[in-house]
Amino acid sequence: MFLQAIDILGTIAFAISGVSIAMDKRMDAFGVLIIAFVTSVGGGTMRDVLIGLTPVAWMTNMTYVYVIFAATIFTIIFRQKINYLRTSLFLFDTIGIALYTVVGIQKGLAIGLHPIICIALGTMTACFGGVLRDMLCNEIPVIFRKEIYATACILGGVAYFILSQFPIKENVIFMVAGSVVITVRLIAVKFKISLPSLYRA
Amino acid sequence: MFLQAIDILGTIAFAISGVSIAMDKRMDAFGVLIIAFVTSVGGGTMRDVLIGLTPVAWMTNMTYVYVIFAATIFTIIFRQKINYLRTSLFLFDTIGIALYTVVGIQKGLAIGLHPIICIALGTMTACFGGVLRDMLCNEIPVIFRKEIYATACILGGVAYFILSQFPIKENVIFMVAGSVVITVRLIAVKFKISLPSLYRA
Amino acid sequence: MFLQAIDILGTIAFAISGVSIAMDKRMDAFGVLIIAFVTSVGGGTMRDVLIGLTPVAWMTNMTYVYVIFAATIFTIIFRQKINYLRTSLFLFDTIGIALYTVVGIQKGLAIGLHPIICIALGTMTACFGGVLRDMLCNEIPVIFRKEIYATACILGGVAYFILSQFPIKENVIFMVAGSVVITVRLIAVKFKISLPSLYRA
Repeated sequence: MFLQAIDILGTIAFAISGVSIAMDKRMDAFGVLIIAFVTSVGGGTMRDVLIGLTPVAWMTNMTYVYVIFAATIFTIIFRQKINYLRTSLFLFDTIGIALYTVVGIQKGLAIGLHPIICIALGTMTACFGGVLRDMLCNEIPVIFRKEIYATACILGGVAYFILSQFPIKENVIFMVAGSVVITVRLIAVKFKISLPSLYRA
Repeated sequence: MFLQAIDILGTIAFAISGVSIAMDKRMDAFGVLIIAFVTSVGGGTMRDVLIGLTPVAWMTNMTYVYVIFAATIFTIIFRQKINYLRTSLFLFDTIGIALYTVVGIQKGLAIGLHPIICIALGTMTACFGGVLRDMLCNEIPVIFRKEIYATACILGGVAYFILSQFPIKENVIFMVAGSVVITVRLIAVKFKISLPSLYRA
Repeated sequence: MFLQAIDILGTIAFAISGVSIAMDKRMDAFGVLIIAFVTSVGGGTMRDVLIGLTPVAWMTNMTYVYVIFAATIFTIIFRQKINYLRTSLFLFDTIGIALYTVVGIQKGLAIGLHPIICIALGTMTACFGGVLRDMLCNEIPVIFRKEIYATACILGGVAYFILSQFPIKENVIFMVAGSVVITVRLIAVKFKISLPSLYRA
């Protein structure tokens, strides 16, 4: 119940970020809806396809579809005002990636994959929707250049596996790992920390 | 027999549209062939991967491969004249997306997916090849910005499910839904109707 | 043993090419790592997804992950000097695509696909990592425009199937087909042969 509420908040935040960027590219309503969809479910879809869990999750659970539809219509209608929600959306988005990271890790564990691969799956679940969004909008994906976004997911994943070495209940590990993702992201944004770009002089 | 003829016409139209755009980007023969291929089979491939129907369709039916090869070579040889075929190609393409939409819907129904997801699968089958083509050519996908292309597919899909509430033979539903796709597209192009682009003033 | 050594050399060469291009785009360490990864394993991943071999290969074999990590760190540290290795890297890369081509063909044969599809799978295994790398870096994929890269893979694949008509041991066919890929590529680069770009005057 609690997790489902978080999942929906994350889906909403991702959908709205997709809608915003698609509108900036002057797409029509169809394009905007597709970008909202891809941003929200792209990461989980990629994960499910790579590990062979098909039909992929959003095809068998209509909740995502309805939430994304509603978020898209809401954002289109209130597009002049959506900036007032910026802080809330940032928080939803951060909580969303924390959840997605841990869910991705657990899907990998369930089929017996190596911890490093599980962390990769978690990070992919959280981040790949944004990568697809940027590819469809003809931009170099923002997470490859700015913000400690993926790094927060990776550190949360590392925390998950460190904690799972100890006799700790899975729910607690889940919460702590998610909190690490959230904390790292908030600290990074607050203090404007980012990974340096690498280039040759 | 009839459906297969339509399928081949659609494949040809998609391949030629891929070849044209790839040549405009000054690709070499290999690039042109790949873009032709992706444009033709990309939508169905995406659909099959997402619902877990692998190996994907074109790998087990050589007809597509031969038709795309032939269409590519034909278009390369007659590239100076291909504009004379513009109207025919537009019609083939329109008939093609109608067929692909209905085929996609039926594949979704066959594995028991929700009507909304089936319509999404149909639209994806019809439109995603063009999206991939544009991504590979480093453009924002044209269907996100222009023409009622995807909208025609969606309306055809809606017609499919409205009709299937009544005791109508599947073949008839198939034909009517396909005709809706074709009619909407023709009307939209004739009267230059398109979805408005959404942007913030 | 011998093949595994080649596989690792190819993986290293692909990873380094990804790192180089990602650094030119001023990505951060995370972006650079992802591009290295995608360049190395993207082709095989695409192949496995399309034929339904999931979880895809790199998820169940940690060697790739460790090699790509090491190659990425090495390249980042020595990024000012990496040009000195250019000739070695070119050779590794060439040997790598030869191996990937033949491996892709054999995976297709193992599930009974048509020779043309097997050649497509081999070429995809060898080339698609680079295509994904270029898409993520917001460039038109270089293999669609320059160098006889894919053509070398295709000719190697054709050699594979011509030889398999005769009573020749599979290992020998493997070596000869791989050598064809290497030879065609070396000759093409040495004599600056490339496919002409196709465009309309």
